[in-house]
Amino acid sequence: MKRLFFLLFALTSLIVGAQGYFTPSVNSPDIAKNGAVTFNIKAPGADSVKLIIDTRVDTLMKRQGNDTWSITLHDLESDLYMYYFVVDGMKVLDENNAHVLRDVKSVMNTFVLDPQGDCPMAVHDVPHGKVEAVWYDSPTLAAKRRMMVYLPAGYDDSRQRYPVFYLLHGTGGDETVRLEQGRAAQVFDNLIASGNAEPMIVVMPNGHTDTPAAPGMGPDCNEQPTFVHKQWMEGTFEKSFNDIVNWVDNNYRTRAAKRYRAIAGLSMGGYHSLYISANQPEDFAYVGLFSPAIGRMDKGKSNIYDNLEEKLVTQFKQRPKVYWMGIGKDDFLYKDNAEFRQLLDKNRLRYTYHESGAGHEWANWRDYLVIFTQLLFK
Amino acid sequence: MKRLFFLLFALTSLIVGAQGYFTPSVNSPDIAKNGAVTFNIKAPGADSVKLIIDTRVDTLMKRQGNDTWSITLHDLESDLYMYYFVVDGMKVLDENNAHVLRDVKSVMNTFVLDPQGDCPMAVHDVPHGKVEAVWYDSPTLAAKRRMMVYLPAGYDDSRQRYPVFYLLHGTGGDETVRLEQGRAAQVFDNLIASGNAEPMIVVMPNGHTDTPAAPGMGPDCNEQPTFVHKQWMEGTFEKSFNDIVNWVDNNYRTRAAKRYRAIAGLSMGGYHSLYISANQPEDFAYVGLFSPAIGRMDKGKSNIYDNLEEKLVTQFKQRPKVYWMGIGKDDFLYKDNAEFRQLLDKNRLRYTYHESGAGHEWANWRDYLVIFTQLLFK
Repeated sequence: MKRLFFLLFALTSLIVGAQGYFTPSVNSPDIAKNGAVTFNIKAPGADSVKLIIDTRVDTLMKRQGNDTWSITLHDLESDLYMYYFVVDGMKVLDENNAHVLRDVKSVMNTFVLDPQGDCPMAVHDVPHGKVEAVWYDSPTLAAKRRMMVYLPAGYDDSRQRYPVFYLLHGTGGDETVRLEQGRAAQVFDNLIASGNAEPMIVVMPNGHTDTPAAPGMGPDCNEQPTFVHKQWMEGTFEKSFNDIVNWVDNNYRTRAAKRYRAIAGLSMGGYHSLYISANQPEDFAYVGLFSPAIGRMDKGKSNIYDNLEEKLVTQFKQRPKVYWMGIGKDDFLYKDNAEFRQLLDKNRLRYTYHESGAGHEWANWRDYLVIFTQLLFK
Repeated sequence: MKRLFFLLFALTSLIVGAQGYFTPSVNSPDIAKNGAVTFNIKAPGADSVKLIIDTRVDTLMKRQGNDTWSITLHDLESDLYMYYFVVDGMKVLDENNAHVLRDVKSVMNTFVLDPQGDCPMAVHDVPHGKVEAVWYDSPTLAAKRRMMVYLPAGYDDSRQRYPVFYLLHGTGGDETVRLEQGRAAQVFDNLIASGNAEPMIVVMPNGHTDTPAAPGMGPDCNEQPTFVHKQWMEGTFEKSFNDIVNWVDNNYRTRAAKRYRAIAGLSMGGYHSLYISANQPEDFAYVGLFSPAIGRMDKGKSNIYDNLEEKLVTQFKQRPKVYWMGIGKDDFLYKDNAEFRQLLDKNRLRYTYHESGAGHEWANWRDYLVIFTQLLFK
C-alpha cells in the first residue's frame, strides 16, 4: 500500500491544478437528499461573491469563517441546472465540480437535481440507447456534415424498423446541444423504458449551413461558437433538409413514411421545423414548435418563406397527427407566436398549444421535449 | 434586417453571461499564422495574472493599459494545449474561449495549434470515421457498462471486416478521455486518410470496474471524477476484459483473431495492457505500453499479477508482432519502467523502446498513439 500512496502522491504532484483532487477544501454543490443544494467556494480576500443559476437565481453568497462563501437553496425543482460564481465582478467556475456545459460561448458548471428519483433528465437504471456522431453527405450543400444520432436500446439486436424524430437546435446551438443541455439521450432512454414513448431513432443535425460541425469539430479546431452566422434563416437549411432524411433512410432501419416521421426544434429550430414541414406536407406527421422564432424571418429571401398561409392550409388538409406549440409566458417571442396562432385559428387549423411559465430557456425546452415525445407515433 | 437585430439583441439580453457574445472585449487565444499565440484577459483591479499551460508554461502576464493582461508565446509546437489563468491566486478560465476540457477534476481551456496544417490532432479535410457511445453487457461484472467505439470512414458502406485496437486510459480517465484530451478520432481519421495507418475499429472502454461509465454518465449524474477508486488495479478489469472483446466481436464486423488485435494504454491502461496481454498470450499480436504504471501493483491481490516473468516468456514465445514501450525521461515511473525493460532483456524478449522528453503527460501520450498506430496490422 505504501507504493500505492506514493503513486497517488506522485501523480497528484504532476498534474496541473491538482489541488483539491483528494481532499477538496469544500464540497460544492452539496446536494442533500431532500433536494436542498449548498454551494461553497473558497475566495480569500474577496469582497463579494455571487451565485448565478441559469435565469433562475442571482444571489449574494454569505461569508462563512475566513475565506469560504456559501449559500443553500431549498426550493429548486428537479431539472438540470447551469451556474457559476462571480467573485468581485469576475466570473469564476466551481473548482469542486468537474461538470461543465457550454451555453453558446459561456462555459458554466452544471448539476442534475433529482431528489424523487423520477427526473427524466437523470440517468436511471434502464436500458440505454446508443449515441453516434456521424458525418453525412449533403449533395445540396456539396459538403460532408456532422450530426448526432440516438438509436434506442435494442436497435442492434433487432431487425425492427423504427420511426424517426428530427430534433433541431436554436441559433446558439449545434448538433451536440440537444444531448448536452437538452439531455436528449436521457430523456429518450427514460421515456422509452417506462413505456411513455415509442422506441424511435432521433436525428440531431447541425442547423447552420455555413459550418459543417459544432465549433471545434470542423476544420477550424478553434472556431468559437456564435449567434451570428453568415447564412441564417435564409432558406438554405430547409432546402437541404431532404439530404438528411435520405441519408438517414439509407443508413438506418427507418420507417420511411410520413406517419413515422416527426420534426421539432427550439427557437431557430422551431422556425426550421415550421417551414420544412409546411414546404413538405407529405413528409412529417408530427410537428413540434418549441418557442419558435416565428415572424423573425426575412421574407423574400427564399421561396421557402413565401405563401406561408397557403402552405399551412395545404399541410393541414393532409392532417398532421400532432401539430404542437409550446412557449413561455415571458418569452420575447410570445407576441409573434400569438400572431401565428391567430393565423392558424383564422384558418381553423387544429394544433395543440402549451403555455408554460418563464421565457426563452432550456428549462422549458427540456420540458417541452418530454411532453411532445409522449405524443409521437401512437 | 431591423427585426433580425432586435432578435439578436433580445436573445443576448436573455442569456446569462452574455457579455462578449458579439464584441468580445479581447480576443484570446489569438493564434497567428506563424503559430505565435497571444493570451489576453480583462482583470480590472488585479495585482497579478498568471498563465498556466499544461506542465509546459507557468508565467506571469503583463498588464496592457488599464485592465487587460497579455502574453505572447512564440515557441509552442503543434499539439493540443490546456490552460487557465490565475488572477490574484484564483483560477479563472478564459471567457473568450468556449473550448474546455477536463483533466481528472480540473476544467481548463483548450486549443489546437497547427500552423503547418499537418498536426494529426487537428481536424483536416479527410473522410471522418464515426464515434459511438454504447452500453455493453459484462457478464463477469454483472453490469451494463459504457464505452466509446471509433469506426473508420467507410465502415457503413462496406462489408469488410476490420482489425480492432483496444485503447485504454489512465486512473484519472474514463471511456471519453482518449477522444477528448487524446484526440483519438482525429488521429485515426488523419493517419488512415494519409495511408499511414490501416483502417481499424478502436474500442475505448472504461477501466474502472467500480463505476459503469464516465462521471455523470452513470446512475449518479453528479459523480465527481477522482484518482481514488474502490477497485483499483486489483485484477477485476483484466479478468472481465474478454466480455468487451466478445461483445465487440459480436456487434461489429471485426477480424476476430490475434493478428488483427492490438491493445495499448497509458499509465494504468499500460499496466492493464501488460497484464491482459500476458495472461492471454493467444489474443493480442500488438501491445503498446505508454508510460505504463509498471511495478505499482499490489502483488498477491490477484492471480492476474502472479508469475509475470513466466507469463511474458510464454507470450513472447508466440511472437507478438509489436511489443512497444514509450516513456518520458522525466516520468516518475521511469525507474520502474527501466526495471521492467531489464526483465525483458534478461529473458531476451524483443520489444521496441521509445524514450521521449518530458514526463507523465498527454503531450507524450498523443505522440505515442501516433507512432504506435502506424505499426499496426501491417
